[in-house]
Amino acid sequence: MSSDRLIYLPLGGAGEIGMNAYVYGYGAPGKERLILVDLGVTFADMDTSPGVDLIFPDMSWLIERRDQLEAIFITHAHEDHVGAVAQFYDQLGAPVFARAFTANIARRKMTEFGYSEKSVRTVSAWPEVTQAGPFSVGFVPISHSIPESSGMVIDTPAGRVVHSGDFKIDANPVVGEPFDTDLWASLAEPGVKALMCDSTNVFSTHAGRSESTLGPDIEALIAGAKGMVVATTFASNVARVKTLAEAADRAGRSVCLLGRAMRRMIEASVETGVLTGFPKTISPEEVKEVPRENVMLLVTGSQGERRAASAQLAQGKYQGISLKEGDMFLFSSKTIPGNERGVIKIMNQFSEMGVDVVDESSGKYHVSGHANRPDLEALQDLLQPSVVVPMHGEHRHLREHVKLANSKGRQGVLAVNGSMVDLTGTKAQICDYVETGRTYLDGSIKIGAMDGIVRDRIRMALNGHVLVNVILDESNEPLGEPWCETMGLPEEGRSRAPLVDVLEEDLSQFMGRAGRRTMADDEKLEDGLRKVARQSAQTEIGKRPEVTVIISRLIE
Amino acid sequence: MSSDRLIYLPLGGAGEIGMNAYVYGYGAPGKERLILVDLGVTFADMDTSPGVDLIFPDMSWLIERRDQLEAIFITHAHEDHVGAVAQFYDQLGAPVFARAFTANIARRKMTEFGYSEKSVRTVSAWPEVTQAGPFSVGFVPISHSIPESSGMVIDTPAGRVVHSGDFKIDANPVVGEPFDTDLWASLAEPGVKALMCDSTNVFSTHAGRSESTLGPDIEALIAGAKGMVVATTFASNVARVKTLAEAADRAGRSVCLLGRAMRRMIEASVETGVLTGFPKTISPEEVKEVPRENVMLLVTGSQGERRAASAQLAQGKYQGISLKEGDMFLFSSKTIPGNERGVIKIMNQFSEMGVDVVDESSGKYHVSGHANRPDLEALQDLLQPSVVVPMHGEHRHLREHVKLANSKGRQGVLAVNGSMVDLTGTKAQICDYVETGRTYLDGSIKIGAMDGIVRDRIRMALNGHVLVNVILDESNEPLGEPWCETMGLPEEGRSRAPLVDVLEEDLSQFMGRAGRRTMADDEKLEDGLRKVARQSAQTEIGKRPEVTVIISRLIE
Repeated sequence: MSSDRLIYLPLGGAGEIGMNAYVYGYGAPGKERLILVDLGVTFADMDTSPGVDLIFPDMSWLIERRDQLEAIFITHAHEDHVGAVAQFYDQLGAPVFARAFTANIARRKMTEFGYSEKSVRTVSAWPEVTQAGPFSVGFVPISHSIPESSGMVIDTPAGRVVHSGDFKIDANPVVGEPFDTDLWASLAEPGVKALMCDSTNVFSTHAGRSESTLGPDIEALIAGAKGMVVATTFASNVARVKTLAEAADRAGRSVCLLGRAMRRMIEASVETGVLTGFPKTISPEEVKEVPRENVMLLVTGSQGERRAASAQLAQGKYQGISLKEGDMFLFSSKTIPGNERGVIKIMNQFSEMGVDVVDESSGKYHVSGHANRPDLEALQDLLQPSVVVPMHGEHRHLREHVKLANSKGRQGVLAVNGSMVDLTGTKAQICDYVETGRTYLDGSIKIGAMDGIVRDRIRMALNGHVLVNVILDESNEPLGEPWCETMGLPEEGRSRAPLVDVLEEDLSQFMGRAGRRTMADDEKLEDGLRKVARQSAQTEIGKRPEVTVIISRLIE
Repeated sequence: MSSDRLIYLPLGGAGEIGMNAYVYGYGAPGKERLILVDLGVTFADMDTSPGVDLIFPDMSWLIERRDQLEAIFITHAHEDHVGAVAQFYDQLGAPVFARAFTANIARRKMTEFGYSEKSVRTVSAWPEVTQAGPFSVGFVPISHSIPESSGMVIDTPAGRVVHSGDFKIDANPVVGEPFDTDLWASLAEPGVKALMCDSTNVFSTHAGRSESTLGPDIEALIAGAKGMVVATTFASNVARVKTLAEAADRAGRSVCLLGRAMRRMIEASVETGVLTGFPKTISPEEVKEVPRENVMLLVTGSQGERRAASAQLAQGKYQGISLKEGDMFLFSSKTIPGNERGVIKIMNQFSEMGVDVVDESSGKYHVSGHANRPDLEALQDLLQPSVVVPMHGEHRHLREHVKLANSKGRQGVLAVNGSMVDLTGTKAQICDYVETGRTYLDGSIKIGAMDGIVRDRIRMALNGHVLVNVILDESNEPLGEPWCETMGLPEEGRSRAPLVDVLEEDLSQFMGRAGRRTMADDEKLEDGLRKVARQSAQTEIGKRPEVTVIISRLIE
């Protein structure tokens, strides 16, 4: 028994914001029994992952150890925590546990993949606990920007670990449980070995603001609006959606929900009882029957996502509804870094229509769902953990959070994805590094981020593509001239002749002077043709394109 | 004479921030004599313009009227105002006028293109004026984040127009002329018909801050640093570079300039006399001889640009210099929307090295170079223009700026690129729309943004590429099987067989059942093969790739 150890291993979410996946283990080294907390996704972008549909953590390490895996626990229903749960259900083969609302969302994903509703088990909040091998795991309600978010109490033979999940300290979160200071203080009683803690807002030095502070300003804004009002926020921010809808209701406006996620989240909230008293909504068809000054649309797409309701309204129309001069569009949301271009594009499209856009820059229409620095300190003060292991942050956030822990006299461990932390002794220490990375969902196929597939696509996007086709007879003599096609390249270059003509001429000359050996050897010939094509393009158009050479040898 | 009109026509910069190019004309409709104010560039991004090197306004309208063009005036040396001056010098064939510092930068561009230094004429500040056809044009010093920025006084037979250029109201800009309230007020004396005005910060409601307020905070920060200090800002912000260098000097640190733009800007400033008393600098080689706590690097790359000094230091090394734990990196700059990912990447790379990153979020280490809302009002109050035509802004900025003008009892004209404004009468009005757009520098070739070339590259990046090659004999019978190559696609799909094998099998079956007519008709055959390849890929990998079909027909 004395050689058993307690380990923590982030496979995603530590060194980035997104695709959370945290492993805990207890047992003999290499034979630990394991649990996984969260299994989320992150989103692709054109710069690094064009054409990719979704990004998952590389779960290979855990899949190889599926026999050791006891259970998967999901803290809350944000996509970066629950989004990959169905994608890996088969490969991980472990039961999924969550509280009612989160379970409702997870089940929708499971059934889309043809799995049974029973794949997800609903559990109640702390003090109820789930036994999973050597672990006793409880869901402790904590406030965040989605209903029923939970921190995890993970009791092990080596002591208690608390995994904060995403959180803020909010005594009045509008929907869901307020942060319960006494409850969280009570968790410290047996002593807390380690706190794995959300780091998102570690650089925000002011105290966090309550969700409930927004109501009056939002009401005043909507009450003063003349035309149709449209508001967007994350659909999962049910409290915000409720605040917006109630403000509309009080201003005599009927509420219409637009976008699949918006309807699905409200549905799940009502089904699970976390949302009550939501104003009656009208359908997009009914919107057309109501004067526009009596309508409020609540729409998806706060991050400028191309296909979301907001982007489609900005393009002109969504479900038959158009905006026009005098209407108002409210971003009750913050733009996540990297999404600025998409959001700004929408703002300008609305501006062109004469729609007034209001964003969160005044501080009146949005508050963050994550704990700011003073609140991170407050949680440490409540739990008095021996060790703080920052998570849910980029490297800079984790590093700053370690400094914060140190400043309060605690050990802080900077553990990025793949760093295995041994928590057994009085001092935590990194005991191993395992290979981690990203898995891309590309169309319907999972591919590795490092497979080179996406790299090739990026190269084609940057450099364009030339196709070279040559046909040789059995004595290695060319049948006709080399043939080129270009894609993504200018039609004409410096010499004012068609680029393909110039390429074909240069390639033809190369083949004319190529020796017998080259002509007989596919690899040499391909290599030579590629070099000539690239050099010729460089001279003509100042670019070195990707080149694919096809050599066909006819044998009669 | 009575039919002569005064027109304003933005070809770039109105409806976007970047690639400024504003035409003014006076004369009989269609025969106006023209001048151009500014000729700048904007920068490409992966989302919309992968592989593009630079973006210019489409200057076709003006090139077609080059005989009417009298002169080009450059307000200041920022790339979005001067960057395209050499690129279009030949096609526009008009002399370029600028003040000394701007002319120095413009000349460097001209000589790179092989043009004479005389292509750019240096003029002095107002009250000196340049006659250009019916226009009398003066450069009025105005404060901005670069030396010798100027607003233009454009006197015409129809009255006076003032073109603000980029500006802020700064009584103590550290380098260059302070904003001279009396001088600007005096411009109003003959009456100002129209003010074309910078709109960048129209949404910033607080008064702007002077460049000179930063000195003490920057000094305190650098004085307190332990290891090497590195600071980045736009190289053209010579005042900031000076403030940083002086703070280093006072803290006993030697200054080293890294990055071509940084050295070139300081060189131009010293050559033209706008910068005096700049501390002595040391070379990158000398840096290695000095203790790191006595060094300050001033580097390019405040926007996270991939090849700039900051990005290379973040990757590990630049000119033999590396950062390490305990060093400090200061972003004395704001991240331009859209550049967040690149900047954040660098911040995290430095964090991994243990380098402390300081950014402008505290407000202590950066101020904007553009006039905030109260300062925009102040300029209107000084000049008392009849009409305000907002420029240098996205649509939302222009629209807000029009509202601001209206709120002060003035006519505001929302004129985006291509809107020709007739300023002759008491009311300004849009009298025509001309086609405008973007020209891409792609490698060494200028292409139109709408030519489809970049669109094809984006498609390849999103969808991948399949090449289909078939060879037919003279009786339209296939010689061998169809041959596929893929680029940017997974090697295997659903059926666990190589994707190319599945594609080739499906294509082969198609050719087997294709009728004589299809086989004889290149277009039909190509169409059929493309459809089969896309459908087959969709089934296998859930993506519909771009397909290029090459049909070779052998005729003996």
